[in-house]
Amino acid sequence: MDTTSLLKWRYATKQFDPSKIIPSDKLQIIKEAFNLTATSYGLQPIKLLIVRTKEIKEQLKVAAFNQSQLTDASDVLVFCIDTAIDALYVEDYFKLVKEKRSTPDEILKPYQEFLTNHFSTITQDEKLNWATKQAYLAMGNLLTVCAIEQIDACPMEGFSPEKTDEILELDKQNLKSVLLMPIGYRSDDDFMASLKKVRKPLEDMVLTR
Amino acid sequence: MDTTSLLKWRYATKQFDPSKIIPSDKLQIIKEAFNLTATSYGLQPIKLLIVRTKEIKEQLKVAAFNQSQLTDASDVLVFCIDTAIDALYVEDYFKLVKEKRSTPDEILKPYQEFLTNHFSTITQDEKLNWATKQAYLAMGNLLTVCAIEQIDACPMEGFSPEKTDEILELDKQNLKSVLLMPIGYRSDDDFMASLKKVRKPLEDMVLTR
Repeated sequence: MDTTSLLKWRYATKQFDPSKIIPSDKLQIIKEAFNLTATSYGLQPIKLLIVRTKEIKEQLKVAAFNQSQLTDASDVLVFCIDTAIDALYVEDYFKLVKEKRSTPDEILKPYQEFLTNHFSTITQDEKLNWATKQAYLAMGNLLTVCAIEQIDACPMEGFSPEKTDEILELDKQNLKSVLLMPIGYRSDDDFMASLKKVRKPLEDMVLTR
Repeated sequence: MDTTSLLKWRYATKQFDPSKIIPSDKLQIIKEAFNLTATSYGLQPIKLLIVRTKEIKEQLKVAAFNQSQLTDASDVLVFCIDTAIDALYVEDYFKLVKEKRSTPDEILKPYQEFLTNHFSTITQDEKLNWATKQAYLAMGNLLTVCAIEQIDACPMEGFSPEKTDEILELDKQNLKSVLLMPIGYRSDDDFMASLKKVRKPLEDMVLTR
C-alpha cells in the first residue's frame, strides 16, 4: 500500500484482538521511531513507557474509564513528559551534543546560556505545557509509523493522568503521563473498522497561497 | 529504505536547494496526510496553509527572524488552529458525521450535547491550547510522512505568530498560526545533513513495564 492508503487504513481501534502480540522487531521500530522524534531545541523532554504486563494493563484500564483497549491491546504506550527541566537538564543535553558531535565549547556555550536562562524564566506550568506539545508531536509520529508498519493503534486523551502516574510511580522518575496509545491488531469484529472516515473536505482543510 | 532508516535520514533541514520544487503528486500526499491526521474528538480544529508564492515567502521570512529556509524551501507549511470553537462548530461536525455515516440522531445527540457543553465551559485560552496540541500531532504526522516520501522538512517554533497571522490575514478566517514547516529538498552543501544525530540512549528514552 502507498502512504495515503496506509493512512486511510489507520483508524482509532476500539476492539483489539487480544490473541495477537506485536513481534519484537516491530516493537523495536516503534522504540527507535520514538527516540528519533523531532523535539523543541532537541531537548527530548519526553519518555515512552511500554506496558505489556497484564496486571499493570488491568490497573491502567481502571484509570482509563474501563476502556477495553487497555487490556485487549498487545501493548499500551504511555507518553510521558519530564517534569524537572532545569539548568542541569540543559547541561546534560549539551554534554550529549559535545559527545556526539565534538562541537567546540565556544559554539555551544551561548546556546546553552540562552536555554538555561529561558527555562529559569518560565513557570513550571509553562514548562509542562511546552513538553506536552512535544509528546503530541511524538504521538503524531508514532501513529504514522504504526500505520506504515500496519500496527493498529488508538490515540487516547481520555484517561486520568493522576491515577496513571500513581500506578506507574511516575513522580519518582520526574515524569507525568500525558497521552495513552494502546497498540496491537484490530479484532475482526470491530465495527469501527468498517465505518466511513469522517473528514472535512480537503479544500476546506488545506489552503494554498 | 526501511522506516527506521528513513527516520534517521530525516533531519531539521537548514539549507534547502531553491531550484528543487516538490512535484504535485507528492504535495497531494502531504495534503491528504494532513486531513487524515487523528484529532481530539475527531473535530479537526486545525488548518494547513501551503505557501509557494515567492513574495509571501519573503514576508514570512521576516516574521521568522530571516531564516533562509522560508525562501529557499519549495513550500512553507503553516499549521493553523481554528479560533472559533463553539456550539455551531460542534454542530457542523455532527452534520458531517451524519452525512458520512448516517448515524441515527439518538446516538449522536448525547455526544453532541456533551461536546457543546464542554466547549462552553472552558476558556478561550484552554480551547486554543487544546487545538494547538492537535497541530503538534499533525506536524508529527507530516514530518514522518515527509521522511517516508523523502521530502526534506524543517519543523519550526521560532517565528512570530502575530506577524505571520497579519501577513496571511488569518484572523479574517478565524485562524491563528502555531507552527511552520518549510519543505523541499536539502542543498548538497548543508553541513547539518552530515552531523551525527544527537539523541539520548534508547534505554533511557523508552522504558518497558
